[in-house]
Order: sequence, then C-alpha cells, then structure tokens
Amino acid sequence: MGKIPVLVIHGPNLNLLGTREPDIYGTTSLDEINTSIYDLGKELGLGLEIIQSNHEGQIIDAVQQAPGVYQWIVINPGAFTHYSYGIRDAIAGTAIPAIEVHLSNLHNREEFRRQSVIAPVCVGQISGFGYKSYLLALHAIAGNTVEHKG
Amino acid sequence: MGKIPVLVIHGPNLNLLGTREPDIYGTTSLDEINTSIYDLGKELGLGLEIIQSNHEGQIIDAVQQAPGVYQWIVINPGAFTHYSYGIRDAIAGTAIPAIEVHLSNLHNREEFRRQSVIAPVCVGQISGFGYKSYLLALHAIAGNTVEHKG
Amino acid sequence: MGKIPVLVIHGPNLNLLGTREPDIYGTTSLDEINTSIYDLGKELGLGLEIIQSNHEGQIIDAVQQAPGVYQWIVINPGAFTHYSYGIRDAIAGTAIPAIEVHLSNLHNREEFRRQSVIAPVCVGQISGFGYKSYLLALHAIAGNTVEHKG
Amino acid sequence: MGKIPVLVIHGPNLNLLGTREPDIYGTTSLDEINTSIYDLGKELGLGLEIIQSNHEGQIIDAVQQAPGVYQWIVINPGAFTHYSYGIRDAIAGTAIPAIEVHLSNLHNREEFRRQSVIAPVCVGQISGFGYKSYLLALHAIAGNTVEHKG
Amino acid sequence: MGKIPVLVIHGPNLNLLGTREPDIYGTTSLDEINTSIYDLGKELGLGLEIIQSNHEGQIIDAVQQAPGVYQWIVINPGAFTHYSYGIRDAIAGTAIPAIEVHLSNLHNREEFRRQSVIAPVCVGQISGFGYKSYLLALHAIAGNTVEHKG
Amino acid sequence: MGKIPVLVIHGPNLNLLGTREPDIYGTTSLDEINTSIYDLGKELGLGLEIIQSNHEGQIIDAVQQAPGVYQWIVINPGAFTHYSYGIRDAIAGTAIPAIEVHLSNLHNREEFRRQSVIAPVCVGQISGFGYKSYLLALHAIAGNTVEHKG
Amino acid sequence: MGKIPVLVIHGPNLNLLGTREPDIYGTTSLDEINTSIYDLGKELGLGLEIIQSNHEGQIIDAVQQAPGVYQWIVINPGAFTHYSYGIRDAIAGTAIPAIEVHLSNLHNREEFRRQSVIAPVCVGQISGFGYKSYLLALHAIAGNTVEHKG
Amino acid sequence: MGKIPVLVIHGPNLNLLGTREPDIYGTTSLDEINTSIYDLGKELGLGLEIIQSNHEGQIIDAVQQAPGVYQWIVINPGAFTHYSYGIRDAIAGTAIPAIEVHLSNLHNREEFRRQSVIAPVCVGQISGFGYKSYLLALHAIAGNTVEHKG
Amino acid sequence: MGKIPVLVIHGPNLNLLGTREPDIYGTTSLDEINTSIYDLGKELGLGLEIIQSNHEGQIIDAVQQAPGVYQWIVINPGAFTHYSYGIRDAIAGTAIPAIEVHLSNLHNREEFRRQSVIAPVCVGQISGFGYKSYLLALHAIAGNTVEHKG
Amino acid sequence: MGKIPVLVIHGPNLNLLGTREPDIYGTTSLDEINTSIYDLGKELGLGLEIIQSNHEGQIIDAVQQAPGVYQWIVINPGAFTHYSYGIRDAIAGTAIPAIEVHLSNLHNREEFRRQSVIAPVCVGQISGFGYKSYLLALHAIAGNTVEHKG
Amino acid sequence: MGKIPVLVIHGPNLNLLGTREPDIYGTTSLDEINTSIYDLGKELGLGLEIIQSNHEGQIIDAVQQAPGVYQWIVINPGAFTHYSYGIRDAIAGTAIPAIEVHLSNLHNREEFRRQSVIAPVCVGQISGFGYKSYLLALHAIAGNTVEHKG
Amino acid sequence: MGKIPVLVIHGPNLNLLGTREPDIYGTTSLDEINTSIYDLGKELGLGLEIIQSNHEGQIIDAVQQAPGVYQWIVINPGAFTHYSYGIRDAIAGTAIPAIEVHLSNLHNREEFRRQSVIAPVCVGQISGFGYKSYLLALHAIAGNTVEHKG
Repeated sequence: MGKIPVLVIHGPNLNLLGTREPDIYGTTSLDEINTSIYDLGKELGLGLEIIQSNHEGQIIDAVQQAPGVYQWIVINPGAFTHYSYGIRDAIAGTAIPAIEVHLSNLHNREEFRRQSVIAPVCVGQISGFGYKSYLLALHAIAGNTVEHKG
Repeated sequence: MGKIPVLVIHGPNLNLLGTREPDIYGTTSLDEINTSIYDLGKELGLGLEIIQSNHEGQIIDAVQQAPGVYQWIVINPGAFTHYSYGIRDAIAGTAIPAIEVHLSNLHNREEFRRQSVIAPVCVGQISGFGYKSYLLALHAIAGNTVEHKG
Repeated sequence: MGKIPVLVIHGPNLNLLGTREPDIYGTTSLDEINTSIYDLGKELGLGLEIIQSNHEGQIIDAVQQAPGVYQWIVINPGAFTHYSYGIRDAIAGTAIPAIEVHLSNLHNREEFRRQSVIAPVCVGQISGFGYKSYLLALHAIAGNTVEHKG
Repeated sequence: MGKIPVLVIHGPNLNLLGTREPDIYGTTSLDEINTSIYDLGKELGLGLEIIQSNHEGQIIDAVQQAPGVYQWIVINPGAFTHYSYGIRDAIAGTAIPAIEVHLSNLHNREEFRRQSVIAPVCVGQISGFGYKSYLLALHAIAGNTVEHKG
Repeated sequence: MGKIPVLVIHGPNLNLLGTREPDIYGTTSLDEINTSIYDLGKELGLGLEIIQSNHEGQIIDAVQQAPGVYQWIVINPGAFTHYSYGIRDAIAGTAIPAIEVHLSNLHNREEFRRQSVIAPVCVGQISGFGYKSYLLALHAIAGNTVEHKG
Repeated sequence: MGKIPVLVIHGPNLNLLGTREPDIYGTTSLDEINTSIYDLGKELGLGLEIIQSNHEGQIIDAVQQAPGVYQWIVINPGAFTHYSYGIRDAIAGTAIPAIEVHLSNLHNREEFRRQSVIAPVCVGQISGFGYKSYLLALHAIAGNTVEHKG
Repeated sequence: MGKIPVLVIHGPNLNLLGTREPDIYGTTSLDEINTSIYDLGKELGLGLEIIQSNHEGQIIDAVQQAPGVYQWIVINPGAFTHYSYGIRDAIAGTAIPAIEVHLSNLHNREEFRRQSVIAPVCVGQISGFGYKSYLLALHAIAGNTVEHKG
Repeated sequence: MGKIPVLVIHGPNLNLLGTREPDIYGTTSLDEINTSIYDLGKELGLGLEIIQSNHEGQIIDAVQQAPGVYQWIVINPGAFTHYSYGIRDAIAGTAIPAIEVHLSNLHNREEFRRQSVIAPVCVGQISGFGYKSYLLALHAIAGNTVEHKG
Repeated sequence: MGKIPVLVIHGPNLNLLGTREPDIYGTTSLDEINTSIYDLGKELGLGLEIIQSNHEGQIIDAVQQAPGVYQWIVINPGAFTHYSYGIRDAIAGTAIPAIEVHLSNLHNREEFRRQSVIAPVCVGQISGFGYKSYLLALHAIAGNTVEHKG
Repeated sequence: MGKIPVLVIHGPNLNLLGTREPDIYGTTSLDEINTSIYDLGKELGLGLEIIQSNHEGQIIDAVQQAPGVYQWIVINPGAFTHYSYGIRDAIAGTAIPAIEVHLSNLHNREEFRRQSVIAPVCVGQISGFGYKSYLLALHAIAGNTVEHKG
Repeated sequence: MGKIPVLVIHGPNLNLLGTREPDIYGTTSLDEINTSIYDLGKELGLGLEIIQSNHEGQIIDAVQQAPGVYQWIVINPGAFTHYSYGIRDAIAGTAIPAIEVHLSNLHNREEFRRQSVIAPVCVGQISGFGYKSYLLALHAIAGNTVEHKG
Repeated sequence: MGKIPVLVIHGPNLNLLGTREPDIYGTTSLDEINTSIYDLGKELGLGLEIIQSNHEGQIIDAVQQAPGVYQWIVINPGAFTHYSYGIRDAIAGTAIPAIEVHLSNLHNREEFRRQSVIAPVCVGQISGFGYKSYLLALHAIAGNTVEHKG
C-alpha cells in the first residue's frame, strides 16, 4: 500500500527557529524539526513534502496546487494565522483536509494571537507542544494512534 | 521504570457521547472511548485514571488532589471551557501540567465556543479530532512521537 | 391514555421564593407554587415531577436522566440562565424538548439578565408572569389551549 | 360579569403567515390563527379585537386609542420588535398592560432578533410556540390557568 | 451581650493557599489564616463559622441557610467572583449583609479579574491585603475601629 | 519607636461631605471624619497628615512630595478615580505604597464608577464602608489587626 | 415686515402629553403646550404651523414640503430621535434649518435615549426644559433674545 | 414572449433628487431618472412599474403584493437600508428576488451607512453609480449583458 | 423683588473666542459675548456673575461655593464636558440647578464630543446656537419666555 | 474613436473558480468567465486586460502600473477585500477609477466578509450576480446602459 | 537672523525623572535633560523656554499664551496625553504648530497609553527615544537635519 | 571607525511618492527623498542601504537577512503598519533594533491608521514630518543629536 502524501507548510518567520525568541519558540532549528518530521513521517508511512515561505501568496499557491498531489495539509500559518483570509479561502476552496499547528500555546500570549481566521476551515488545531505539535498532526493523519503498533 | 501517572478528566455531558448530537460528536460511546484511551495508555507506558463529572466543583476537587498522584492532566472541560475560571485557577494553582482537548473543532461552531478561559493555563490544546484528540494528548505526554517505535 | 410525564426544574435560589426580594418575585412560597403546578398538571393530564437545586451539576444530571422517563422539561434556570453552557449542552444533548420559564420579565431588570445562553436550545421561553409562567408552560405542553374545554 | 376586552395586534408581515418562510413560521394562515384566537377568547370570556398592520404609525395609533376600550394588549411586533422605540413609548405611555408574543424562538435565529426594545415595557414575553404563543397570552390574561375549570 | 455571629466563606481553590502560586497569594496556609481569623474574631466579640468549598452550589446553600443564624457574611468568592450570578442572587435574596474580600489586588491582574458580579449586592469590598483582607472585614463588622479600645 | 507617618488625601468634592447627596455619602462632615481618622491614627501609632483638594495637579504635587516624609498614602481619589492617569503615574512613580478608599460601594452605582485607573498601582482597595473605609485603611497600615491589643 | 414662517413638528406619542408618564413629561396637555407656542410665536412675530404625527412617513413628507413655505423647523422627533435616518435625510435634503427639542433631559434617562441620529443635521438641540424647550427654540429663531424688547 | 415584470421601489427622500444635496446625489431629478429607467426597461423587454414612498409601511405593503404580479424587485431603500427589518422580512417572506441599489457609494460616507439590514435577503447589491445603479440592476435582471445585442 | 442670582461659568479655552477656530466658534470675542449676557441678564432681572477658567479644580471650587450665593449655574464646560467627572460630582453634590450650554452643535463634530459626562446631572442642555446658547439659558432661567412681555 | 482600456484584476483563489465551493461560487471556470468578459468588452468597445494573482504585492504592483495605460480598473479583491489596506492605498494613490466586484452577496455570508477596506476608495461596488458582476461593471464603464442601442 | 522661539512643555510627573520607574524612564534627571535640550537648542539656533507642570490648567494657560511669543511648541503631555481634551483644544485653538514627544514607546506599554487625544492636533509625534525624543523634535523644528552642517 | 550599517525599508506604495495624493504625502519623489537620506547618512557616518517593496513577504525576507549585516532598521511599513503581524514577528525575531517612521501624522487620518501592529516591537516611532521623519530616525541612530557637531 502506498504512502499517504502530506504537504507540511511552515509560514512566515518559522525559518528563524532556533534563533528567534528562544524563550518562546525553543532552540531547535527548522532543519532539525524537519528531520524529526521526516523521520516520523517515514515511520508512519506518510509521504512528506515540507515547504516554508514568508510570502502569503506562495502559501496560497501551494495550497491550491495540493489537490491531486497530497491528501492532507499540515500548516503552521505563523503570523498569517491572524489575518490571512486568503489562505483560509485557499484551504476552504480545495478538498484537502488541513490541520493547523502552532509551536506555542496561543492562548497565553498577546491578545491578537488568540484569534485564528484559518482554524474554522481546518479539521483541527494542535498548539503548545513545540515542534511536537507537527508530530502529533502526523499521528492524527496516520490515524495509527493506538493501532499503529506492531 | 514506572508508568507516568495521568489523570484524564471528562467534563459535563461527555457521558452522553454516542447519543448526544452524533453529527457533532460522533457515535462512539464514552465507554468505548475510554477503552481506546486505556489501550493507548497501556501501550505508551502511562498509568491512567479516568473520571467524568457534570459538577464543576468535583472537577476542581479532582484537579486539586492530583499533585503527588499524577504527573499530567488531560482535560476536556466541555462547556466549562468557556466560563469556569474556577477550574482555571485550580490548574494554575497546582504544579501539574495539563492538556486541554476537544472532540470537535471549536472554531467552526458557535461564537461562544471559540473562547477558552482554561487554555491559557494549560500546556497546549488539541481540538477537532474526535476521541482521537485524547489519544494525541497521550502521545504528547509520552513524548514518544518519533522514538516510541522499536 | 397515559399521562404525559414532565420534569419541572427550579434552578438556584428559587427555594427562597416568598422571602427573596418579594417586590420582584412576589410573596408566594415555592411550596405554594408547586401545589399550583401539581394541580394544573393533574387537570391537564400531565405526570409531573418537580425538583429544585442550587447545584449546576445536579441540574445537568437531572436533565441527562430525563430521556425515557419524561417527554418534556420545564426549566427555570434562575441565575444559571446567563452562564451555564453546561445546562445548555445537556438540553441540546438530549432529545427532550424544554421550555424556559422565568418569574420576572428579564427585559426590564439588570442588563446581564437579558441574555439567556439556554434559550437557544429550548422550544420557547415564557417570562414575566410570576409563578404562572410555569402554568403557561404546562398549557403549552398539554396543547389543550383551545381544545381542553368540555 | 362582562368580558375582559383585549386588543390583539399583529405587526408587519404577519399577514403573510402560511406562505412566508413556512419552515420558520409554519403553514397556518393568519385567518386560521385568528379563528383559534377568537375561539379561545370566547371560551375564556375575553372580548377580542384583532388587527394587523405593516405600518408602525398605525400600531402606535392603535395602542394609544386602547385605554378606556381594552384592558390588555397582546402584541406580536414582528420586525418592529427590534427597533420601534415608538411602539415602546406608546405602550409605556398608556396604562394598559401588554404581553409580547412571538411565533418563533427568537433566541435561535439571527443575532439581531434577540433584542427586543419593546419587551422592557411589557408585562411578559412568550415566544417559540407558533400561533399558540397568542393562545398562551390569552390564558395569562384570563388568569384561569388552574382555576378556570368548572 | 452575645457575640455577633459571622459566616466566613472561602471560595474555590482557597484551600490551596500556601502552595498555590505563592508569588500571588503568599505562603500562609488556609489553616494558618483561619487561626488568625478566629483569633481576631474572639478579640472583637464575633462568633465565627468558617467554611470552604469548591462547589458553587454548596456556597449558594450556605448563604441561603445563613439568615437566622448569622448576622454577617464575609466571602472571598475566588474565581466565582467573575461569573457566579447564582451566588449573587443568593446574597441578594437574603437579608444578611455581606463583605467581599480578596487576597490580591484584582486591579493589577488579568483583565477578567476586574469584574465582580457579586460586589454589586455586597456592602463593600476589600482587596489586596493578603489574608489581612479578612481581618479588616471583621473590623468593619465589629465597628470597633476607633472605639474598640479600652 | 516613632510613629509611622501617613498622608491621607481626600479628592475632589469630598469637602462637601455631610451636605452632598447624603443618601449616598451619609451626613457626617469631612471635619468629623477627619477627627475620627486622627483619633484612630493616634491610637494605632500613626502620624497622620490630612489634605483635601479639588485640583488634580495639587494631588499630584502632594503625592510627589510624599517620599521621605510619609511611608504610606491613603487616598480617596473621588471622581479622579475614573480618569486621572496623572495621579496614577504619580503613585507609580514614587516608592510609597498607597491604599485606595471609597465611601460608597462603587459596584452598585453608575457604570463609569466601576473602573479605577488608580487602583492598579495601589496596594489594595477598600470601598463601601462610609468613612470607616479610611479607618480600615489605617488598620491595614498599622498591621495591628490581631496583634494591636494590649 | 412679514412674519417668519415656522413649522413645529411633534413626533410620536407627544399627543399623549399630560396623561403619559407625568413624572417624566409633566401634566400639561399638548393643546395647552400648543397654545403657549402660538402665544409666544405671535409675540415674536413668527408665523407658526404645528403638526403632530405618530407616522414617520408623514413627518418625512411634512419636512419635504416645508421648503418655500417655512423658513425654520422646530422638531421634537420623540422616539424617532434614536433611529429615524429617514427623517434625518429629509432634513439634510432640504435647505431649511431645523432645531431639535426635547421635553426631558435625554442624558439622564435610558442609555438608548442619549443617541440622536437627527441632531447631526440640525442647527442645534435644546432638551430638558419641558414644553419650554419649544419656546426657547422660538427665541433662538426670532433672534430677539436681547433685542426683542420694546 | 411576454415582458418580465419588474417593480422598482424608490425609498424615502428619493423624490427630492435633483434638489437634495446635489454634491452627493447629483442634479438629475427623479422624473428624469424614471424616464431613463423606463427607456432601458423597454429596450430590455422588461415591464416596469415604479413607485416612491417615504412610508416604510407602504413599501412593506408593496413588496407583499408583488408576488404573482412581478418577477423581480429593484429597491433603493434609502435611509430604511440601515434599520428597516420590516422591509427585510417582507422581502424574505416573498419569493420574488430583489436587487438593492444605491446612488452613492455607501462605503465612503457616514459610518452608519455601511450597514444594510436588507442586503442579506437580496440577490445582490449595486452602489455608487448614481442613477445608473438602477440601470445596471435592469441589465442584471434582463440577463442580456452580453447576449442582448443583435 | 430681588434679582435671581446666576453664576455663568466658561470652561477651558473659551477665553480664546474670536481668535480660536473661527469657522467653528465664530468671531465674537468672549468680552463681547459677556456683554450680551450681562445685557440680557439685566433685562430679565437676573444678577449675573461670569467667570472663566482653564483649571478644572477652579471650576469645581466655583461650583461648590455657589450654594447660598447663586440660584442657578449656566456652564459651558468646554473640553471638560467629555471627561470631568469631578465637575459632574460638584454639580450633583450641590443643590443648585445647572444648564449646560455649547456654542457649537456637538453632534456634528468629532465622535468624542458627543458624550457629555456632565449633562446627566444638569437640568437641560442647549447647544449649537453660538453665544446665543447662553442667552437662551438665561431665558430658560427667567422663565419669562411667554409671559415676560408687557 | 479608440477603445477605453480597462484592467480587470482577479484576486486570490479566483483561479479556483468552477471547482471551489460551487454552491457558493458556481461551476463556471475562470477561463469561461474571462471569455464572457472579453466578449462583452469587445461589444462595448472596451480594451480589456485580465490578470489574476494570489499575491497581494503583485496586485499592488499592477494597480500602480495602470496609470497611463488603463482608464478603469475592475477588481475582485477576493479575500484581500477584508484586510488589504495595501491595495486600498494603491488605488487611492493612482488617478484611475476602480469598481469593486464580487461573485457572491457578501452580506449573507460570514460576518467578516461584510467589511470591505477597499470599497471606500472605489467608485462603486457590485456584488451577488456571479460572474455577471464583472459584466455589469463593464456596462457601468461603457456608460452605454440606455444609449448603447443602435 | 533671530532665533526661532520654542516653548518646551513637560507634563505631569516628568519632574520625577531619574527617580521614577527608571526601568521605563531611565536614570537621567529632568535637569540633566533640560541641559541637553538647551545645549542643542543653542546649537540649532532655537530660543528655548522650558516649563514643567502637574496641573492641566497651567499647561492650557501656557499654550494659550504662546502665540506671538513662540513659533513652536514641543510637548510631552505625560499622562494628560490620554484624556486632556482641554490641552488638545488649546493647541488646536492657537496657530502655533506643536510636536508631541514621549520618552518611552507608548505602543508596548499598557493598552490605555496607546491612545493620544492630543496627537491629532499636532504636527507629528516622536516616541521611544528617551530624552532624545525632545532633541529630535528640536531637529525637526530647526529643519536642519541635512542642511545644518557647516 | 567604520560606519554604522542601516537598512532603510520603504513599504507598499511609497514608490508612488510625489504623485500619490500630494495633499497628504507632498510632492517630493521617492528618489529625491532617498537622496536626502543618503546625504544625511553620509554626514552622520551611517552606511545606508535603501529598499522599497510592495510585497509583505519581501519585506519579511529583508528583515530576516539583516542580522549580521545591519545594526539598525528604519522602516516605513506603509499600509502594512496596520495588519502585518508577519513583519512584526520578523522584527521581534531578530536582534536588530528598528524605528518605525511615517510621512503623515497617522493620528489625524482614518481611524484604522491609528493602530500600528508593528510599533510595539520597535524602539520608537516618528510620524508627521514628511520625508524628514526618515532623517530624524537617522539622527536618532547616530545619537549625534547634540554631540554631532565638531
């Protein structure tokens, strides 16, 4: 049986990880995170593609081109979470289910970070577990939370 | 090495699961969900205790008594999510980290469900994956997202 | 033909009736009101059970246990009207239709009393008629508004 | 003993009943409803006059002319419920008690329908019981909720 | 002359005192605080009863049963301060004057802590003096602020 | 041991006490109140200075000149409570702890009186006890709530 | 020199004056008020026409027909003050200056009465002087505040 | 093939066109506009009826009587746009599709003009093109945007 | 019969009149206005005292000292209109009725100018008539609107 | 006479048309729509250029380069409608008049879609007519609504 | 050529500089700051006058007396920034251009500090550069930002 | 000693300067402004790089690449000021201090321009001085406000 293809999208400023505000975002670099994501993807039988962009338009483009190629999207929209109705419409306008993930717990930061304009069109949201938020999303996709053992 | 003790708290009306608004909450009963939770807990080396209550005071009591007994709390506060500053204070007032989970994606339901007064004092929040939201929380606790194979 | 079983729920502080702020709530005690309710229930062929509680959790419990026992709920949620999403979810999560009643006219009291978080999941709302609000609810259930003569 | 004279006022668009959005308002026409109202009025010893108008000014006029002729007003202000401070002032400015009724449960419809600018000057409000909301109002007036038998 | 009977109510999570967020609430345990309260009560000629509960319903029950037994209530509603209209109604519905106390200064904490739904029905409010807020309330009751000497 | 020097500041319109809206503020004049304050201060070993001003600038000046002279400030900011960020900054900018007092219970008066822009920079707030609010503040300063006896 | 023609418009429910809520609006009837208005108009050399209507449309019509006939409008829009953008547009759409008058002081009544949607397009507003608000408007028009003597 | 019957409704103050605030609404009179509307209607094969009213009730009446006579309504609700839930309900309660038109661009005028309570129940909205907004609505109805040539 | 003593208070920046923003406030200087006020006062039998201050505290002082000296206050609070709860309390705290006047029509200027925190404690408000707003206030006081002829 | 050059801009996600949420946006693809637009443009003597972009920056660039090339812009800003002050400033900063069009009726969709930050700087807005909204915009530009016949 | 006369106004509590909250405002005293201001003023050819006041009225007075004496005002309104419409009106009412300066960056402090009621009537605003905010204002006045070199 | 390297970023639409709304932004072109910036930079010993972009993503990219190359950023975010949390996060995520500048005084323009989502993470903000806002920022960086002579 083939792998489930998944597109992982890192939004703006996530390429700064490891250097950016480490008290909030930790000291792990994006490359190290991606390695963890790829590793778990391989284990769970997922075919992963990972991209990062600081450009809203590029993320919209990527979401639009996903249908027919990927079955799921895992997206950390970064700051776009709070205002990009464009990304929201792109996700709503395609048939691919998406999971919104966040490194930090948005609920105990600035007030404006509590609103996600994208979450309403996603399957679910995982936040607060550092880079493991991504890994949990992969588990959610693989569905093999209990059953994936042996 | 001993098991990590975890207290799983189901809030009000979750005992109705399987019969309550199945288009929103699915048809799996709470007993079936608990079985899945116990199963994954066993696999992940977690020592689970699961309780359900419709009484805010009982949940506050339970949270208070957790220190020294449990290392983590997984809580689906149900409707208390939106107004129980009492549960919030109980979690903040103990040293046990908590994960807030929700069956449904709160962001595409009624407006009032978008606000959690409890999430700001939790480690993180997982919502939208049906009963698997609980399972993902267990994964987050076990930390064995990649490494648990082998 | 058997009686229609109806559960009447008095919320918090309604046991104070007759003594509590009589200029707002009148001088009739809860016992006297219950007698009137039972009397009309008997006349209208309703099988009534009446409970009162100051505990949100007990009211949630009561609502949950109603299916299969009662066909209707008449509820005066008292102060819970304005914040108990827990009771709201309990009513929405069962298949029993409910009628929200209030002794006083909520619209000419404090601002916060104008919002009911429970009414949206009820069949209807009756307020402002003193204890007769309950009686009108029984009429609504009996359906014998015109036809009950003869 | 003479009949209690009551003025029943149907506000704007209620003449469309039976054809207008039947999923919300039902399929009973206004004439059929009026027949039910007259029938119950007769039985309860009420002297009913029923009017309908799409004109706010006509409703204000009718309310003003009620004193000395009617002892109660039953009013379904329709859409005027939400903005006619003019009708509100007319009711407040006369000594006749009024009951506000609504066919549908305003609390589970559009947000703007939850606010009544008229209810604060009424005795009470009955909503959600279809045309039977009017009938319950008559019961409330007749006072014969328990005692009206034999 | 007999003692003035006073009911002191500690709301939710106050039993955690001494362990809970000591930077906000100090390191004195509830037992130690109660000892101070009893000591001052004795000195001031007050007959004190002290209870603590995490259950809103139990606090409502306690308030309701106070008339005829106590002449004053001193209440720290904890988190219930911000949403329990049920406790508010219980206090308003009895004839016993109440004083709301808080350990911390609510005005320099989270935004939601600035609103008290209970204070409007109390005689007064004392906040920010740690456990001495309770003691000041006793002074206020005893009335012996100047005159109690000699 | 020397006296603890305390500056008591009466804000605008408090010089009207005894004549101003006696149903809200009582019939005791400011002079009588000051006598009570001085008396208790003497008893408690406090060195009191009392001033009153209708001028925001004078109050700011007084607060600024307090360091090195007084160890505590007791302030009833009157109407300045609700808008004088200038007084707020003066208190925050000095190292002297302040207690905000109010004669009436601000929570059951006009909506605008519920907000204090000054309280966030004070140690605590006492309101609702008439002129005894000042006396309680002195007790709070003296610390001799239990221990001040013999 | 001819008289200055002025149209005086009484809005909804002002025909109830003398009977309507006399504690707010006084006991003088509209006829008596009109006599006072006519009398002062005559003295001040104004040619008055006075109308009253409960119908927003009639008031709009009247305002529209004023140009070429009247040089000023004095209008008490009653409850229309708060929502009739239609009357506002009529006044703005004609070249006749208007003065808005109110019997009562809108600022110490219900919150909704503080907003006038009509005042922004008027020359000025006079409120709180009972029927003398109209008379002051006539003085304002006549301009003879000082000079109108001998 | 017969003409498509269309009812064009001009709301309040539109009869002032040409004289009313020409910098906002232009200098063309309503008669001239109606001629343009009739002319285009004839060309497009529409059977037009045009009415104007300053009375909300008359507009509600007209909308109610449209079914069976007209297939479309073109309505410029004027100031009623912003508060007439009565007209909204009339349009929603009939089966005739409606188009809301405005002469000016509501988005660059007063804040209150940005909200239309009527647009949600219309097919679409055209604003900002002067009287040509009506003409565009006719094109939309005729559907002959491209194809109506030849 | 003696003159009615009246205190006229000009608030901040009114001393700039004639030079300050003449398109809003006109070209008449404060001295010229005061002459007009004195002239009308003399004619109407009023004993006028006029003061101007840019200091909120001085205005509060002046209001406080008015009782026993003046029977009325006419006050243009200038910018203090919008935030001086101190002046509000001074007026409320004395027994002298006050009239709030404004040169310009506050309703068609900046949003913040529409709120008066002082008007709720005044008898009435007159705005929009330039310096004649003061003169109309004198007429209101003299009461001789109709009767002062002859 | 030469053609009027017009730039038509399709904003983000409009390239999904025909596949994206067809119940909202219809089943016509963007290519088909563009064909209709070109056809009508040819007929009406307009010289059309059509672009689509998911990138806000590209749309700003395009608007900036329009002056001197195009005389009109027709823009469907898609999701950028609700937050792109950048596009707003670009349109305001050029001298080319723009028309905002929308396929769906924004007023009966999610709340956030009701606000356009771009419309205030456009000539007008057309929404709700599917792809024909574009065609109506071309008619508006051509001006040949009535006169374009033979 | 003479010096450009400039009035520098320090608002409330700025005299505390060097002692007040040094983590926010730095450790430089107001005297030291004034020396820096004078020094730069001399270098730039400005004739400086510097005042400080905690009294709103004194600042209004100073602003009013500036015309004819000073050509520019540099003002740090301190806490008055957020509520003194009186100072705002004084600046707007004179012809002297003003620059608002702040030591700290108002945007990352308390929410209430983000609003300036004075800035709208100033030429510009400079904040966040400590005492150098004043110096930058002098540069802005001197205009010799580039050109002032040799 | 080497030059201090500074990156100057012009946000969207600033390339239109000189042509765009000259009454707001002046008639100086961006090239002319840049020349002034370069000239002052040279004089002050700053090593300047200047870029302009209409693309949010490009600005984020530029900010991210600044560390190690530049010591300061001067940014005029244009319309992005009001919604680009992406740029905000980029600035916060790097260690380079930034100064936000604006040509116009944002406080006397549209309401939405008063909020900057970027300023909270900047050192300071300078607005209202036309292109000289940039020059003042350079002075602030050079620190040579007083000392830069000689």
